[in-house]
Amino acid sequence: MHEFDLIREYFTWSSIQGSIVLGVGDDAAICNIEPGYQLATSIDTLISGVHFPDATAAADIAHKALAVNLSDLAAMGAIPKYYTLALTMPEVNKFWLHDFSKSLKQLSEQFGVQLIGGDTTKGSLSITISIIGWMESGKALRRSGAQVGDGIYVSNTIGDAAFALWQLNSNDSPDNSCLNRLNRPMPQVEMGRSLVSIASACIDISDGLEQDLSHILTSSKVGAIIEVDKIPMSPLLTDYVGRDGDYSLVLNGGDDYELCFTVPEKNQVALSRISKHCGAKITQIGVICESGGLEIVGAKNAGKSYQHF
Amino acid sequence: MHEFDLIREYFTWSSIQGSIVLGVGDDAAICNIEPGYQLATSIDTLISGVHFPDATAAADIAHKALAVNLSDLAAMGAIPKYYTLALTMPEVNKFWLHDFSKSLKQLSEQFGVQLIGGDTTKGSLSITISIIGWMESGKALRRSGAQVGDGIYVSNTIGDAAFALWQLNSNDSPDNSCLNRLNRPMPQVEMGRSLVSIASACIDISDGLEQDLSHILTSSKVGAIIEVDKIPMSPLLTDYVGRDGDYSLVLNGGDDYELCFTVPEKNQVALSRISKHCGAKITQIGVICESGGLEIVGAKNAGKSYQHF
Repeated sequence: MHEFDLIREYFTWSSIQGSIVLGVGDDAAICNIEPGYQLATSIDTLISGVHFPDATAAADIAHKALAVNLSDLAAMGAIPKYYTLALTMPEVNKFWLHDFSKSLKQLSEQFGVQLIGGDTTKGSLSITISIIGWMESGKALRRSGAQVGDGIYVSNTIGDAAFALWQLNSNDSPDNSCLNRLNRPMPQVEMGRSLVSIASACIDISDGLEQDLSHILTSSKVGAIIEVDKIPMSPLLTDYVGRDGDYSLVLNGGDDYELCFTVPEKNQVALSRISKHCGAKITQIGVICESGGLEIVGAKNAGKSYQHF
Repeated sequence: MHEFDLIREYFTWSSIQGSIVLGVGDDAAICNIEPGYQLATSIDTLISGVHFPDATAAADIAHKALAVNLSDLAAMGAIPKYYTLALTMPEVNKFWLHDFSKSLKQLSEQFGVQLIGGDTTKGSLSITISIIGWMESGKALRRSGAQVGDGIYVSNTIGDAAFALWQLNSNDSPDNSCLNRLNRPMPQVEMGRSLVSIASACIDISDGLEQDLSHILTSSKVGAIIEVDKIPMSPLLTDYVGRDGDYSLVLNGGDDYELCFTVPEKNQVALSRISKHCGAKITQIGVICESGGLEIVGAKNAGKSYQHF
């Protein structure tokens, strides 16, 4: 199949609008840029068998590929605007492509982002999305702003995606709610936007809470104490963890795409309003301290978060 | 190996400067945006065994991965600024990574582009680069601007990269100059910039002259006549083609990353100055006509350009 037929059939639903001058189908896309704003950009690849089980449905893969990129911008407090897609696949399967493009379109519309270009190549299944967003100049949520005394917070519940993956790998059937957390993560874009000027540091939980929080600590040159029994968990995971007190899925399981952020005391009063506005739980799990790395109170065993190699 | 160690060791040579506010190592990179300019962005993937032979040197792969993206911006007349890299590889090979990052750095410096973020994943070797550039508002070289009577031009010589690839696939040893055209294509960024306000349409030759020129014709809703004996070729390729008059490598071989563009008569006087300024040959190969697709005068056999699937 000709690449151009493929692009025309499956990836031209993104009509040219707003600040897009030239979209899919030329050597590059062109957008107008907005003064007073800064550009935020990120790139993420999902590989079949590494980031999702080979049997994952096309619609889930498309959703996740875009969601993880949206989540990167959420963690910066940026407004997602455009993305490009590099799709590598072993063959042209029309059913697969139909489901993939439909799901991608759906999430794009939900978050108001537009696909403006891409590349399709033949090879083992892998999906790379590069996303571009804006943010008010100087307002980005970085990893490096955490200060001693700041509270440490997470959005919603942690560990469900890892719980579902662990069950799949054990040939067990995960509950639909957990499977949904694994396959259809919901990036906290609105919360990221709301945390601008409120949070002192922010990261999205992709590789595991322990590792991702550690990135904030390293970048901010501070330490932290968190308490495992404060980490918000779904009833199903609470039940599982309650059996033998193993917190490794909660601490080291990735794929949650919730936000982990730090907030100075004076701003903490704003969090209940933000929680209500975003329709998402916000829970304090610990506090930033002078130094000494990350101390985890109440965890029996130390696990290992996701390693890329 | 930890992804963060890998990034620190091989991909942090790109120091924060100019309009970059936040580079490698947070959830996303942040750059200042420039009023009066538009943003140009493109993404391209290279897959081992598809876009380059498995045995290709790491330095050549890195060069080509960035060059093909630079070439996309060259074809728009844009100024390349930033890029992100998604690198998928089967294992962490320090020698390979050393060569790869050194070559990437070299080409980045040569073209003044900065690596501002990325993602590394485990899997079969594939390299995706997403590039961002600027251009003066409304000045982009599109594929859709060719008008009846415009001359059709190409930069430098066409077909050497395909000639080298054909020799490699025939277990023949390509001449170094041809091999260099295949492995180290030089994007015509300066020429693209110079053609802004001069050319009416432009594309880079990645899939083959015939197919790429056809994209201009389709987008511009015009036809064209080109003459094969006007297509500029290297002495080696001229020699090869002279033997049996087979122009398929010249017409359908991709990987040249030269520019193919159309110029209205009134602007053609500027081309010798541009050729001199860019140190690159510019040759007229045909003319845009009313309709009727692409007529190729003098070619015995019709070939087929690169198909992505």
